[in-house]
Formats: sequence, C-alpha cells, structure tokens
Amino acid sequence: MTSKPHPFPAPSVSPIPVLGFDAAGIACGVKKNGAPDLALIASRLPCKAAAVFTQNAFPAAPVLYDKALLGMNPDAIHGVLINSGCANACTAVQGNVNAKRMAEAAEKALGSSDNTVFVMSTGVIGVQLPIEKIENGAPQVAAQLSPTGWEAAARGIMTTDVFPKWASRQAEVDGVTVTVTGISKGAGMIHPNMATMLGVLATDVNISQPLLQQALTETVNRSFNRISVDGDTSTNDTVIVLANGAAGNAEITDASSPAYAAFVAVLEGASAELAKLIVQNGEGVTKFVTVQVQGATSDADAHRAANSIATSPLVKTAFFGSDANWGRILCAVGYSGAQVLPQNAELYIAAGEPQAANPELQLVTAGTPTNYAEKDAAAIFAQRDVTVRVALGLGSGSATVWTCDLSHDYVTINGDYRT
Amino acid sequence: MTSKPHPFPAPSVSPIPVLGFDAAGIACGVKKNGAPDLALIASRLPCKAAAVFTQNAFPAAPVLYDKALLGMNPDAIHGVLINSGCANACTAVQGNVNAKRMAEAAEKALGSSDNTVFVMSTGVIGVQLPIEKIENGAPQVAAQLSPTGWEAAARGIMTTDVFPKWASRQAEVDGVTVTVTGISKGAGMIHPNMATMLGVLATDVNISQPLLQQALTETVNRSFNRISVDGDTSTNDTVIVLANGAAGNAEITDASSPAYAAFVAVLEGASAELAKLIVQNGEGVTKFVTVQVQGATSDADAHRAANSIATSPLVKTAFFGSDANWGRILCAVGYSGAQVLPQNAELYIAAGEPQAANPELQLVTAGTPTNYAEKDAAAIFAQRDVTVRVALGLGSGSATVWTCDLSHDYVTINGDYRT
Repeated sequence: MTSKPHPFPAPSVSPIPVLGFDAAGIACGVKKNGAPDLALIASRLPCKAAAVFTQNAFPAAPVLYDKALLGMNPDAIHGVLINSGCANACTAVQGNVNAKRMAEAAEKALGSSDNTVFVMSTGVIGVQLPIEKIENGAPQVAAQLSPTGWEAAARGIMTTDVFPKWASRQAEVDGVTVTVTGISKGAGMIHPNMATMLGVLATDVNISQPLLQQALTETVNRSFNRISVDGDTSTNDTVIVLANGAAGNAEITDASSPAYAAFVAVLEGASAELAKLIVQNGEGVTKFVTVQVQGATSDADAHRAANSIATSPLVKTAFFGSDANWGRILCAVGYSGAQVLPQNAELYIAAGEPQAANPELQLVTAGTPTNYAEKDAAAIFAQRDVTVRVALGLGSGSATVWTCDLSHDYVTINGDYRT
Repeated sequence: MTSKPHPFPAPSVSPIPVLGFDAAGIACGVKKNGAPDLALIASRLPCKAAAVFTQNAFPAAPVLYDKALLGMNPDAIHGVLINSGCANACTAVQGNVNAKRMAEAAEKALGSSDNTVFVMSTGVIGVQLPIEKIENGAPQVAAQLSPTGWEAAARGIMTTDVFPKWASRQAEVDGVTVTVTGISKGAGMIHPNMATMLGVLATDVNISQPLLQQALTETVNRSFNRISVDGDTSTNDTVIVLANGAAGNAEITDASSPAYAAFVAVLEGASAELAKLIVQNGEGVTKFVTVQVQGATSDADAHRAANSIATSPLVKTAFFGSDANWGRILCAVGYSGAQVLPQNAELYIAAGEPQAANPELQLVTAGTPTNYAEKDAAAIFAQRDVTVRVALGLGSGSATVWTCDLSHDYVTINGDYRT
C-alpha cells in the first residue's frame, strides 16, 4: 500500500439531517480488523421506496431479497440495514435465508413490522454471512440511531473506500424545504450498468411511489450509471431511495409538475455528487477524468464512445502517467462501435472544468494532431482533474462519463484484496 | 521497469525456412535508440495473398493501403515491408502518401513491379512516418534477405515486446512437405476483434486465393482473435499470409479436400503458437491464463463470457496476486451478457493444462463454493500457467480465450510509453 496522502478530499460539508430519518454505524465483528461494518438508516414514518439493482446474472442474496420486498411493500418501508465485509453473493439458499434473517433482525430492533426493511451487503463474494454477528449488532446499531448519524453510517459501509461518502441537497418544493441526503460506497468493481454500487438516499419529500421510482431511474442514468472505475459490474449493486413525506408538501403525483422537477433536481444533485465521490475514491485513483463525447449520431453512440475511453486500460494508464496520449483515446473511440468519420473527429483537453480563464487545448482536428505544444498538453494532464472532450462532428448525440486513472495502487489493492 | 527476468521464454526452436521465401530485419533510424525497426519478408515467386484487418473505425494508413492492394492484386504479391516505432495512424492524407511511398521503396528494392508489396506499421499513433529513413532503409534490408532471416525480421517489428516471436509448422500435403512460418508482434493494445496485431505468415503451399483467404479467416478466429492482453483493439492490427506454391503440391481448390484440411491444421498450429506467444509477451505479464467456458447456450455466448473474464481488471489483478478469487470470475461471467443460471454454474482451476497427473480443482458447484482447501487453490494460482474452466450447464456452446494478468509492470510500461 501507499503512504502518499489520497489526492481527493472527503466531503467537507456535514450531511444535512432529513426530517424523520435517523442513521448510525457500528462495528459488529464481520470485519476481522474491528472496523465499522454495520450501518442502519431508519425512518420514524413509513416511506415510499424505489430502487435500481445490478443487472449481473449472479445477483447476490440481498439483491434478490430487496427486489421481492420492493414488489411486495413499496409504500411502507422503515429502513435499510447494510453490512460491509461480506457480500452474501454466490451463497445459494443459505444466503437467501441469511438475508431474510438480517432483515428480521433490523425489523425487531426498530420495532417495526415484517417486510419493512431492506438489506444490503458488500465485501467478499462466496462466503456465508456471519449472521449471528449481524443479529447481535442490529439492536446495538439501532441504539445509536440519531438524526446526525449519517457520517457514522457512511463509515459502516466502507470496504476499500478511502473516505466515507455522503451528499446533501435542499430545495423549495410546494412552499416547503425538502432535503435529500445520501451515502454511497464503492471503490472497485464499479461500472455503469443499472445501479452501480451501494447507495441509499433518504428524503422527506411527499411523492407517490411510481413517481419516486421514475425519479430514481432518471437520476441514476445521469449519475451512478455514468461512472466507471474498472468496468466491473458487481453482483450487489443497489441504489435505494426512501421518501417519508415529513417535509409536508402536497404529494407529488404529476411528472410534469414544477414540484417533481424541483425534487428530481435535488435528487440528481445528490446522486451525481455521490457518484463523483465514488470515482474520486476509486482504488488507487490519482486522477479524476471527465470524458465528454459530443456530435455523435445518437446519445447511445456517444455513451458507447465515452465508455470505451473510460474503460481502456491503455487510456487509464496514460492518465496515470500524465501522458496526453490522444492516440489511445481516439483508438478507444474507434473500437467502441460508435459511428465515426476519422476526418470529422476533434479532441480537446482541459484542466478541470474548462472556463474562459481555463480554456481547452485542441489536440486533434480532422482526425490528425494540431500543432499543439507538447508541454501545454503535459501541463494539463499533470493536473489532478482533467476533462477530455471528443467531438465526432456527425450529429447531436452527447454523453458524459466520469472515470479515474489506472495506477500501481489499483494493482496492489486488487492483487491482494482477500489476504 | 523491472529487473526481474521475463517469466516466459522466447521460442526455443529456430524458424523453419520456407521454400522461395527470404526475410531480414535491420535498424533504419525510425527508433531513436537504434533498435531494429524495419523488416522485410519477400518471395522469389509471386504469391497468392490473404489478410484480415482491424475493425477499428480509425484504421491506420497502411491498413487502408493493404485493403486496397488486396482488392487490386491478390494473386501476385512479392512481399511485406514492416516498420516499428511509428504506427502511421491518425496521419490523414500525408499518412496515405507515406504508406504508398513505403510500398514503392520496397518494390524498387526487390526489383518487383508496382502494387506487389504490402506495408505494415506499428508504434506511436499520430506521428508522420519518417519516410526518408524508410526509403533509405529499404535497399539495406533487401540486401540482408536470406532464407534464415526470420528471427531478424521478428526483431525488426518489436515495440515493447520482450522477445521476438515466430512459429513454424510442417505437414504432408498431396505427397509433398508444406511449411508455414510466421512472425508476430504485439504486447499492448491486444484484444480479439478481427485481426489482432501484426502477423505475417509465409507458406510454400499451392492454394487458390479464395481458399487461402478462407483458411486465414477460419484460423484467425481460432487463434489471434482468441487472445486478450488489455481489451484494446488497435488501429493497425493486420494478419497477412502469403503462399507462393513452391512446395509443388497440386493447387488446393476444394475446401472439403484432405489437402485443405492438412494445410488449415498447420496454418492454425502456427497461428495459435504466435497468438499464445503474444500473450506470454504481454506488457508486464507474469501469468499465462487459459480461460475455457463450456455448457453455454451458444459458442458466441461462451466467447462473451470467456472474454469478460479475460478483460476484467479485477480478475486480472487477482491472477497477478495469485489470488484464487473465483467470485470475481463468476461476477465477470454474470455481467458478460451470456445466459446464466447461477445454480448450474461450476468453476474449475488447474495448473497449466489439466491432465490425469495434474487434475483440476473444483472451486464452485451449483453457483456456490465447494469445500476446497484454500491452500490447494493458492498452490495452483501461484503457478505461471493457469487454466480456468467455467461450466455453465446450459448447452453445448464453448470457447477458449488466452489471456494474462494485469501487473505493476503493465502500469509502468503504459503510464510512461512515449517519454
């Protein structure tokens, strides 16, 4: 491992409490090193719930459990219990039994009825949950619940994450203040495909369940599904949002209403921040890269090209080496399957977000290099935050993907995760 | 860079000369460090030619040139001139002009007529060829041509390759001995998709041009298209085979003849060996991994699953760490898009090729871990050569992919390639 300081900071602003919600995190012994490994999010009011799940064909037991629960009781959920240190994936029938026992332990600790708590697990695959430890831990973590417990909860779901991740947003909806606060985890096995890691979002907005699901699906497609650390879509990826209505707005039931738009904006704001934090917390990350593809024949084609850039080991090692190797970037576009005319392609880079005072540098015009100065390109690629923009010059399709570099520490962390 | 010895050896048997063919390699100054960078393969008799090319949407200038030449004159080719150190990719019109000048320089040096020589380039993208150096080098490399020049030619096409790569096979065809000898290069930017790197195969068999193309296409799909180092399909990938008929067999014109089958067998034997050598020479490679997927609903699905395993950074870093992390392997199958029933999935590993004296160890049955001993799995994964077999239990589709691990040296080499 490295002794270098992590190049990206933890969130600098505290999570904003959400009316009617409490959170907590403790160590219950799943992790052998005594680190926090159990987190509970609970609402004193019953919540509308919505979720997106991994598309992996080996879904973990908690994913199967949550899917069934969401179908059964989407309107009166009371919380989410999450453990780290063991993924409860590839665990067959015993895994399903343990997911159910985990939910029951939380329901008992919260004093809520059956089928009111979701469960999530993250960690090593193929090992049965130490369910007694979680059953013993459930009342302990419930005893710690508090409106300001979000940071402790965020710490309880970390695996190889460097820092706990949370984000909050507030907006006026229907004359009242609505809050969204979320936590997320994910550092490896991160790739856009439906839900992309573990995320829990809590909000006090009053909204119908179908619209809550619609808002989450829209939001995830523009946030969690736009990040890639290593292209691996895990067996456990889940994002859940709980809405308890405590803010007191009139129930949002119309997707064309200003209230819905205002809520989606804060949900997306919090989700995008959580997603970017995941990338900035990627295993061994030293660089945060925003990949923009424009001028594609469709948004889907643009996403294909952006994704190909964001997952190419050659591109990602070039980012790590601060090498403005645009040839690898165009090459990745070239094999992405996106429609391309080489003579129309342009490529630009910038340090961080391009602005008037921080202009882009054009490296490629008409598919060939401009007369840029190598030192100017190198100065940009030496920055911690880099934007790469590819303009295909074919249509109006566009997409943005956030990714990181591929470093020595990624290899170290993942070459020696279990031992 | 590392000072450790490379874990895989160069070919231990000398290339077998092919009747009527000569080869040579020299340094002509494209590479600043004076290493060999120009190779010539030439036949004294006109050759039938066949080729497969990259599917990258930014094909390099030599790829465009060779495609046109193959369409124009597939029956009377005299050779292939190859430079390393500069890919002549993303070089627009000037690149096309230089590819043509490179071919003309070789034709002049060989005393052969127009449109009789293919060209290939490998190296950095987006830099114009130093064409005068190649024009000066062409007569020099032609002066070195000899029937035993294959190793020198193989050295002339290396970039980050650790050792030169060649393979030879012989068979009886129609009562005469037919020889196939080939060379290849490729160490990064290697991924199965049509042609996969640079390869030149020479044979003295007498065969019709359409059947030569058919034999190459079949063979590439079972060799060069089954390897993956890093998932990147380059702009320059090309495999060319030249057949000059000097062996004296009756021309092969029937795809159902024993003669055709015998020729395909030796072409595939040489191609598979060249493909495996590329993986064993992968950038920073420490392990050679054979990934077999069986029991899929189709061969295409099996290939999808095998490929997903072979390109997963998490799986590849686990190989590097000698960590028998089968959870990552199943996870990669799960997001591959291949049809899967978790409860049918089995996973086996073996050191090298499994045999009676070297049996497989079953790690997963019915989608969950067996009671294998971790030390037995670790002992297998500590070997240089590892076989992973996933049995999906759904049908008869199967595929094999050869890949390598993802190591610190891969990151070092590719984070600092141009500087």
